[in-house]
Amino acid sequence: MGDDRRWFEDLRVGEVWEHGPRTVTREEVVAFAREFDPQAFHLDEEAARGIGYGGVIASGWHTAALCHRMVVDGLAGRVASLGSPGVDELRWLRPVRPGDTLRLRVECVEARASRSRPDRGLGRFRYELRNQSGETVMTMTALAFFARRPAGS
Amino acid sequence: MGDDRRWFEDLRVGEVWEHGPRTVTREEVVAFAREFDPQAFHLDEEAARGIGYGGVIASGWHTAALCHRMVVDGLAGRVASLGSPGVDELRWLRPVRPGDTLRLRVECVEARASRSRPDRGLGRFRYELRNQSGETVMTMTALAFFARRPAGS
Repeated sequence: MGDDRRWFEDLRVGEVWEHGPRTVTREEVVAFAREFDPQAFHLDEEAARGIGYGGVIASGWHTAALCHRMVVDGLAGRVASLGSPGVDELRWLRPVRPGDTLRLRVECVEARASRSRPDRGLGRFRYELRNQSGETVMTMTALAFFARRPAGS
Repeated sequence: MGDDRRWFEDLRVGEVWEHGPRTVTREEVVAFAREFDPQAFHLDEEAARGIGYGGVIASGWHTAALCHRMVVDGLAGRVASLGSPGVDELRWLRPVRPGDTLRLRVECVEARASRSRPDRGLGRFRYELRNQSGETVMTMTALAFFARRPAGS
């Protein structure tokens, strides 16, 4: 809660953050799939090849969670986050494979004060996740609530 | 790959599936948050109370991943899934807390053959996740690819 915290009033439409890189291991791909997405093409090489994926791919939910972790790490302790009401247009465009190195670009595309809750504002952010070849593997538009700057701070 | 597999041609708009129940433990809420969403209100009771959440809440990405697991378990081995191109309008409407028991309703709202890829069709599904009090905690519209029934099967 130091003076360097970023409040809703500090959000700027058009501001861009770059997060990562983050390399994805086979172990974590399989561990996530076992827990949350035990479909064969996330666990088994042969099954993944059989439906044209060319090998095991990460669960899309794993990719989304890794994105989120990159953002939290990149902004850790520096934003007055109050959580998120949701996400729009999440698209898994290309497979994420073990060994891929991911980088995330986040752009603020909207910032508006809440009408119903005067303690907060809403930010809207465009996410673009790329792999080591520069291919876009995932995009989404994420919403997030930010606390408003307290009077006198 | 038995005769009871559900192919794209078996999808029916209006069909509803009920999945769960699934009870969420404090240990898994904290474990997921440590790995993917280490914001204080997912890890620390005091921090969560400090911003009005009344106690630790699950990461929204954890809730989404649990939903997905419920669907995979509910349909395991019975659908010819080819993965998903994405999700629309994911909304985290109310907190999910340790001890909550979740139930998921999934309705097929669209089914159409792919124009560009004759091996598959696309289904669109409306998700509604409720807690033990009947409150809706999360909604989303998920897309999924399904293999078309092979000729002669």
